[in-house]
Amino acid sequence: MRNPLSEKIVAIPPSGIRKFFDIVSEMKDAVSLGVGEPDFDTPWHIREEGIYSLEKGRTFYTANAGVKELRQEISAYVERRMKVSYDPIKEVMVTVGGSEAIDAAMRAMLDSGDEVLIPQPSFVSYMPCAILADGKPVVIQLEEKDRFKLTPEKLLEKITPKTKILVLPFPNNPTGAVMDRQELEQIAQIVEEKDLFVLSDEIYAELTYGQEHVSIASLPGMKERTVMINGFSKAYAMTGWRLGYVCAPAPILAQMLKIHQFAIMCAPTTSQYAAVSALRNGDKDVAVMRESYDQRRRYLLHAYKEMGLECFEPFGAFYTFPSIKRFGMTSDAFATRLLEEEKVAVVPGTAFGDCGEGYLRVSYAYSLESLKEALGRMERFIRRLDGKG
Amino acid sequence: MRNPLSEKIVAIPPSGIRKFFDIVSEMKDAVSLGVGEPDFDTPWHIREEGIYSLEKGRTFYTANAGVKELRQEISAYVERRMKVSYDPIKEVMVTVGGSEAIDAAMRAMLDSGDEVLIPQPSFVSYMPCAILADGKPVVIQLEEKDRFKLTPEKLLEKITPKTKILVLPFPNNPTGAVMDRQELEQIAQIVEEKDLFVLSDEIYAELTYGQEHVSIASLPGMKERTVMINGFSKAYAMTGWRLGYVCAPAPILAQMLKIHQFAIMCAPTTSQYAAVSALRNGDKDVAVMRESYDQRRRYLLHAYKEMGLECFEPFGAFYTFPSIKRFGMTSDAFATRLLEEEKVAVVPGTAFGDCGEGYLRVSYAYSLESLKEALGRMERFIRRLDGKG
Repeated sequence: MRNPLSEKIVAIPPSGIRKFFDIVSEMKDAVSLGVGEPDFDTPWHIREEGIYSLEKGRTFYTANAGVKELRQEISAYVERRMKVSYDPIKEVMVTVGGSEAIDAAMRAMLDSGDEVLIPQPSFVSYMPCAILADGKPVVIQLEEKDRFKLTPEKLLEKITPKTKILVLPFPNNPTGAVMDRQELEQIAQIVEEKDLFVLSDEIYAELTYGQEHVSIASLPGMKERTVMINGFSKAYAMTGWRLGYVCAPAPILAQMLKIHQFAIMCAPTTSQYAAVSALRNGDKDVAVMRESYDQRRRYLLHAYKEMGLECFEPFGAFYTFPSIKRFGMTSDAFATRLLEEEKVAVVPGTAFGDCGEGYLRVSYAYSLESLKEALGRMERFIRRLDGKG
Repeated sequence: MRNPLSEKIVAIPPSGIRKFFDIVSEMKDAVSLGVGEPDFDTPWHIREEGIYSLEKGRTFYTANAGVKELRQEISAYVERRMKVSYDPIKEVMVTVGGSEAIDAAMRAMLDSGDEVLIPQPSFVSYMPCAILADGKPVVIQLEEKDRFKLTPEKLLEKITPKTKILVLPFPNNPTGAVMDRQELEQIAQIVEEKDLFVLSDEIYAELTYGQEHVSIASLPGMKERTVMINGFSKAYAMTGWRLGYVCAPAPILAQMLKIHQFAIMCAPTTSQYAAVSALRNGDKDVAVMRESYDQRRRYLLHAYKEMGLECFEPFGAFYTFPSIKRFGMTSDAFATRLLEEEKVAVVPGTAFGDCGEGYLRVSYAYSLESLKEALGRMERFIRRLDGKG
């Protein structure tokens, strides 16, 4: 029997995030700071709206692009929060999480050999989605000395005549880095000069601390060059609902919709009705969760300092990205030993790109109690490494 | 500004199904027999399980491949109904409807230029998904004289050294054709001789009338060559839940899971818990709905006969595919006039492939009352065409 598989897909390595979870789930008394998902249940009024829609028998397909009411709420929200105006009918599409939107954007925009700039460390899906869409991923290695921001120099260095898309993953998973208006303006200028498009993944937009999120789409001349991706998973603790959205210029959105229509049909109906309630009445919930994350963030940074673990201060998402370079181990070796010896699961920085070597992703989407337990174990581990244990 | 779009996606025409719906939704007193979705609400015990999971706060990601409990139920169901045994851990994946499974299978198996045999008339997604995955779709035109079945002759005619996948869309949308064991055995023999793989779309497997559904995967030597796609939308009236699944040999499933993991993450959580109840306690609901569809099917065939509309007898799905050839109009012209003059929406056969010319897809996933109203109007229309109006 011949080989049933596509060469292209076989060559793509599976995500490095899951490896540790499979071990953790079998391990007694393990504490995980690994998963990139809020620890909160979805707020009750949102679940209630989902329940109500099921009781009412709203169990049918919706329009391919999503329920009109939801698209209108998304448009109003994006206008209010990001200061960009999108036509709910022609420029907004509801997707199966942010992930489907990333995939559909790459498929709608890339022809064979088009280059996609991917700043790393970053979310694991950009690279495989670019490859699957026949694009050529070109990595931009971000550095701690730049606070893991994308600098104009680093961007210019990688642009070629084949460059088509720049992925802009801020607030960033896994580093927690954010980009402010002035920094984005510098990037926008290059994007315009070099005639590029931006895939701006703003899924963590609601989770910034002491600094307001700015969308590159809101800068002059950028809306027509930007595919803005967002969703409900992180801000509203709605990961399992699989609901995201994309706002983009009408010609791009029309092609993404075509892919969505053939490959997905529509986002889950119950989730769409629940999401209407999230956007209408969820601001307070987001604020409460954000305050919680911020408290944990500060706790973690303080605890790192105490135990002698260097960490740049993240202002977004719910991750810290401490450096373990001084221990002379790879991220993978460190994470493996930490799991084996202290039963604490974190993700090696290398899961998010080669330049994540020497770092760990430690999520604070966990209760303070879990964080305290885990940090205590980490401290013990580090003391041992330092010969003080 | 340069063109943001991929040439490949721009060249794919949008689905021909939706065109009429947009008109219908704005039209007063229109009756639609167009949509391919059950008219029943999801059975209450299934919705109740969804509601319960929301109340319990099960709003988190599940394993990428789906909740273990659901995969076990799927495996048990497929063994019971299709007589094929799949390992729930390594050979079953839960997807966002059957559509995502079709897309992921093509992406996992096709390299550039690999040929995909697509019997038509058939579901609108096979062709675009094959093209998006860089495959080359090769259409097999099915004919009414063969009762729209795939014959060995038609299959052999289109096989070349580049042929890799045969799509097997039975029970068929839009014709309602089914394939019996003996007919499938003939196809299986060719598949094995020519070293092909089968993408068997069995989403309508539960909806056959007077004839049991047979899966090609259950024939000797076929499991290892078959990707079996199924889901909850049609059998359990769960379209809006967006839940399907795929059963496939482990090496193929592993690659499909990789795509799913990066592009989708997991199927909606609430839907997965509800689906467990569908498989455990849904047999009776399926039987009741099947009986309803069958009653409507017989009503339609009888009414067609009375009004002089030829139609081959369909034994599966919930569609009839009457011929309008004797009126000397294109399917599109007929459907357009029927909508304009009598406000009845049906889908031109050409939406499902060029060889659908001369036919209409008339769905009977509508109440008998709606069917009677619509058929009355159709009869009036036909009388006028026949100069008897």
